[in-house]
Amino acid sequence: MILKMKYKSIFYAFTFTIACFNSSAQILQPATTPNAAQKALIKRGYGMFIHFGLNTFTNVEWSDGTTPASAYNPTNLDPDQWVRTAKEAGFRYVLLVTKHHDGFCLWDSKYTDYDVASSPVKTDVVKAVSDACKKYGLQFAIYYSLWDRHEPSFKDKNPQVYINYMLNQLTELFTHYGPICEVWFDGGWKRKPSDWGIDQLYKLIKKYNPKCAVSVNHTIVNEEGTRKLTLPSLMTEDNKYFFQYFPSDFRLWDPKIITKFDKKQYLHKGKSYYLPYEHTICLSSRWNWFEKSEQLPVRSLDELQELFYWCTDNDNSLVINVPPDKTGRIREYEANAVIELGKRLGLSANKPLPKNGKFISLLKPATASSEFADKNQKYSASFVNDGSLDSRWLAADTLAELTIHLNPSDKFNKISIFEYQDTKQLPDGFSQIRTGRIQEYSIDILKDRQWETIYLSAKPMGDCKVIRFQGSYQTNQLRFRVIKATAPPSLYELSVIDDSKLKK
Amino acid sequence: MILKMKYKSIFYAFTFTIACFNSSAQILQPATTPNAAQKALIKRGYGMFIHFGLNTFTNVEWSDGTTPASAYNPTNLDPDQWVRTAKEAGFRYVLLVTKHHDGFCLWDSKYTDYDVASSPVKTDVVKAVSDACKKYGLQFAIYYSLWDRHEPSFKDKNPQVYINYMLNQLTELFTHYGPICEVWFDGGWKRKPSDWGIDQLYKLIKKYNPKCAVSVNHTIVNEEGTRKLTLPSLMTEDNKYFFQYFPSDFRLWDPKIITKFDKKQYLHKGKSYYLPYEHTICLSSRWNWFEKSEQLPVRSLDELQELFYWCTDNDNSLVINVPPDKTGRIREYEANAVIELGKRLGLSANKPLPKNGKFISLLKPATASSEFADKNQKYSASFVNDGSLDSRWLAADTLAELTIHLNPSDKFNKISIFEYQDTKQLPDGFSQIRTGRIQEYSIDILKDRQWETIYLSAKPMGDCKVIRFQGSYQTNQLRFRVIKATAPPSLYELSVIDDSKLKK
Repeated sequence: MILKMKYKSIFYAFTFTIACFNSSAQILQPATTPNAAQKALIKRGYGMFIHFGLNTFTNVEWSDGTTPASAYNPTNLDPDQWVRTAKEAGFRYVLLVTKHHDGFCLWDSKYTDYDVASSPVKTDVVKAVSDACKKYGLQFAIYYSLWDRHEPSFKDKNPQVYINYMLNQLTELFTHYGPICEVWFDGGWKRKPSDWGIDQLYKLIKKYNPKCAVSVNHTIVNEEGTRKLTLPSLMTEDNKYFFQYFPSDFRLWDPKIITKFDKKQYLHKGKSYYLPYEHTICLSSRWNWFEKSEQLPVRSLDELQELFYWCTDNDNSLVINVPPDKTGRIREYEANAVIELGKRLGLSANKPLPKNGKFISLLKPATASSEFADKNQKYSASFVNDGSLDSRWLAADTLAELTIHLNPSDKFNKISIFEYQDTKQLPDGFSQIRTGRIQEYSIDILKDRQWETIYLSAKPMGDCKVIRFQGSYQTNQLRFRVIKATAPPSLYELSVIDDSKLKK
Repeated sequence: MILKMKYKSIFYAFTFTIACFNSSAQILQPATTPNAAQKALIKRGYGMFIHFGLNTFTNVEWSDGTTPASAYNPTNLDPDQWVRTAKEAGFRYVLLVTKHHDGFCLWDSKYTDYDVASSPVKTDVVKAVSDACKKYGLQFAIYYSLWDRHEPSFKDKNPQVYINYMLNQLTELFTHYGPICEVWFDGGWKRKPSDWGIDQLYKLIKKYNPKCAVSVNHTIVNEEGTRKLTLPSLMTEDNKYFFQYFPSDFRLWDPKIITKFDKKQYLHKGKSYYLPYEHTICLSSRWNWFEKSEQLPVRSLDELQELFYWCTDNDNSLVINVPPDKTGRIREYEANAVIELGKRLGLSANKPLPKNGKFISLLKPATASSEFADKNQKYSASFVNDGSLDSRWLAADTLAELTIHLNPSDKFNKISIFEYQDTKQLPDGFSQIRTGRIQEYSIDILKDRQWETIYLSAKPMGDCKVIRFQGSYQTNQLRFRVIKATAPPSLYELSVIDDSKLKK
């Protein structure tokens, strides 16, 4: 162990020198259209996010850097299975957490002993995943935490010391595990944005792969120079919001979701840059990232399908977190879920990503039998079809109705409903148990001045309900009627959709 | 009204004479293979049952014959829509309730004033449905109640007087509304079997249509000459049970379901007759027959699909009750459900009915972590795969596991589970609210001596849960694990199925 440390230190100084002497690499340019890295990101569109590491074996979501490397001990480590599953499920890339906030590295890094090489299972996971990606024809992307709770240089008064550590590790990753198509930086809130050397990291990455897309979580703020984050769902205006971390090729904020009116132009020092958005969501209905001992239920296929469309539309992209468990394999039932989703979506490496139908209800007049009283009208009926999954209608009564006025010449054959869920946070600070309120409900349309029920359910709605019709309907009014609920019902979004033209 | 009564009485005597003079018609013959009527019934296989009449407008399921005809008052009667819906849904015949126990006739009968002709809406519904069946290319069948709570002759001391009334009405039906492919007699429990003149009714029907299949509800008994009914799920031995009503071309008992081992040979006076079974179930998850004011939720498509396979298999048939509402139309959401079912099943008038896959778990050894203590072992684990939807496993604890030993060379890609439901009977004496117990559960298979979870759900199970896998599994042990339940879990049947060869 002592020998290894010495060896690592020599390399540290050496590689740092190389990194600093390269300043000719590509830098982000003002633009209103995607650059090569962004075009590649948009084309990829759909990736599998893999959280695996020390936290898989702890009872917290973010271990503090003192957990011994020996705690990392998968009994049946199988990275080939991860990537094979990704391929079967139609993902186009795999985004691997190479180092989380705890600082533990999934590869044998020359610059630290806090890595798999010091653990009971010494497999170089980064190499194994990168190799499997080549084998299965997928692209390879990495998540790398800026924040490092273990590495001593992180606490050095001179920020450059830790920046050099990162430059060295990224050099290792790019020289031994490439090509890497994307870097997802996280944990930036632990330092001033300017103290991370983002420009140096960006330049280094671009030197190795100009087409690599780079970003830092919580990319965008309300006011230049502040840390006031801008919710992705509010990014509906060009040239209004600012980079927090510059340069970045795309926007990030897990697990937030943009609106139907997402815009792409963001400001930095008076200039405007094009930035797509990459969504990151969990397969688990409990919104967990690391898969620990407990088996967690997955989101419904309907919800995943609608989120897929929502998140990959409009030149944005989506990664779904499918974490391996303590044995080192993706659980069979979770693999089954993403594979079935891919089948449903008809994903194929050679075809463009599928799209949802036309939302004929978007922004149409909506009224409700009741709205929860709020001086800012935060819960009015109009939020139900505003194209945002953050805003919502909330009724004042348990029994409630909501009516949307439609253009009677618009046909529809599908309705998707995202219901607000009461959540109970679990002790790890991330997981949550989600409980809906709506138990029985109907969809009615106005026909010859009479309400006709076209769908009736006596089953709890859940996060997302999709209703499909064999034929098409047309009406000037569509009503959502809650027949039974355990609390005043609330909907994020109710979308009336025509996807008849998309069917084969 | 008085004039009409007179006119009817004249016809009564006249037609009665005709009926009595025809005794040369076909009679049921001992056989071990289906006769022409039975062959046609088996080939039809799937029909829409329509309950519509006075009870649609009352608050009871069986009105007592005193409800005035004026109560029958549909506002938008549309029998063409009923049959059009049947056609779209892939049904091959329509079975119409022409007269229920209340005696109210859906056609303008010469022999009574208690019919549609005396009501506010005089449309001859039997004619309208029969005509629509011709228009849409479906076969037409009738339900006719033996028991008549209105007709005065029913109370005559001489049973033949009322038998003559029935002979006359059946003559009307067969001469004006034919061809009629099937007659479903009901209410036989109100008289001794020999007092209904079943042989006379049968002969009359066969005179008009030798290929018409005839039966009386509760066809079969345990001992000849008794009224001890035999549950259809117990009919697993040939030549053990007896006709109650002879002759009958098939067996009936709504809404009972046969087993995977249904037999076809039944005894009458020492001779053995071939008898298929016709299932009758409700579309409504509340098991209602008449659709009154309240909108009722429908069974899930998974449940309907599995029941379809179960009930039409093995040369038996199924009718699903899809009742019109007070307006006189089948409700749109109910029509949607059967049409979607037909689409799922891939029904087509020119193709044989689709079949389920192979049940690889049937009768294989099953054990459970607990079984409810019962001296007759009524609830043991082995009932979970005995091919019967009447028997069930019941655990003693809320948390429970059930294991089925399989042949590891047998592949499977589907599991269907019928869960026992606690039921609350509603005041009409028929409807019930059904509540399941199992809230969270998994399916695990033994692989390399470890349990691997291949499916996990945190949603209430409901009457029937179908789990489909994209690929196939093989294992020597499959485990059903209840993670959360509101009461000791109980399953009617858990079937491990291979339908991979059925897919296109």
